[in-house]
Amino acid sequence: MIKKVIPFVHNKLKETVTNEDYVIDGTCGNGYDTLFLSRIAKKVFAFDIQELAIKNTEERLRRNKVYNVKMIQDSHENVDKYIKDKEIKAALFNLGHLPGSDKRVVTKWPSTMKAIQKIKNNLVVNGIIALVVYVGKFGGEEESNELLSYVRSLSHEEYNVIKYSYFNKEKAPYVIIIKKNK
Amino acid sequence: MIKKVIPFVHNKLKETVTNEDYVIDGTCGNGYDTLFLSRIAKKVFAFDIQELAIKNTEERLRRNKVYNVKMIQDSHENVDKYIKDKEIKAALFNLGHLPGSDKRVVTKWPSTMKAIQKIKNNLVVNGIIALVVYVGKFGGEEESNELLSYVRSLSHEEYNVIKYSYFNKEKAPYVIIIKKNK
Repeated sequence: MIKKVIPFVHNKLKETVTNEDYVIDGTCGNGYDTLFLSRIAKKVFAFDIQELAIKNTEERLRRNKVYNVKMIQDSHENVDKYIKDKEIKAALFNLGHLPGSDKRVVTKWPSTMKAIQKIKNNLVVNGIIALVVYVGKFGGEEESNELLSYVRSLSHEEYNVIKYSYFNKEKAPYVIIIKKNK
Repeated sequence: MIKKVIPFVHNKLKETVTNEDYVIDGTCGNGYDTLFLSRIAKKVFAFDIQELAIKNTEERLRRNKVYNVKMIQDSHENVDKYIKDKEIKAALFNLGHLPGSDKRVVTKWPSTMKAIQKIKNNLVVNGIIALVVYVGKFGGEEESNELLSYVRSLSHEEYNVIKYSYFNKEKAPYVIIIKKNK
């Protein structure tokens, strides 16, 4: 079975995160990933800049009787304002626009990069940052190029960077996993 | 946990192959993969052109009391001579040289490509062909470039092609999985 990108990344997160761990959902969107993370982690810090995303996610969590998520309506680049002295086991960024909303309101690499740089400092050894990248979406190609050039530059002694991609399909979504080695 | 290339590919094979399936080890080498395949499949057809590889693999299988492997000392490009009317669930090609032997005696893309083209015809729907590619080995870069250009050209309606790679390490080994969709 070939895993599609979301099952692949959920599987990696399941292998990594335990119910004693703090995790970050950098882009809560409609809350599907937030709900998934809430079931495997001790606590989720879920960010989104859009009010609609926060509302949709809160509604999904309430319906599922989930109480271990802290919702934060702010850009993920301000992650350090909200998470000061917690060790983080995993962070997930499902990039692009809020599904069902304005396709032109998208994540932008400079703010995602700032978030990643801050989270790296709080990431435990063997912790991961996972990114799902939608090359075909509005602004996706530019975001993808900047992201790839950034992760390629990470020292492979400090971080393993895995790319999981559909190789014979133009502009197919792909996954990047950054794992902290030491 | 980030899987290294061999555990990643073994995991994909485990998800795909059952004990009712026929599989091919295109490059038996010292027999580690052959032994692994023998434990998940009904029968393994194991190819290698080198006598030493055949001997080492036979020895490993004997020590492990494994009897469901047909050893074939021939190039995998002649796969159709030995497997005529069997449906194949998976094939594995661990490319490069025989570990512990002459590093300049390596797999070459033209013969591997012929093998893949023949196996594709006998592959069942949802069956996979997995390739482990060692870019850093003797002749590895040329083999890798030819292989990537071939798999990129496969129709994504007929085949999913997944690439699993260490993205921030020059010449790191990577995995290609070709899955038959229909």
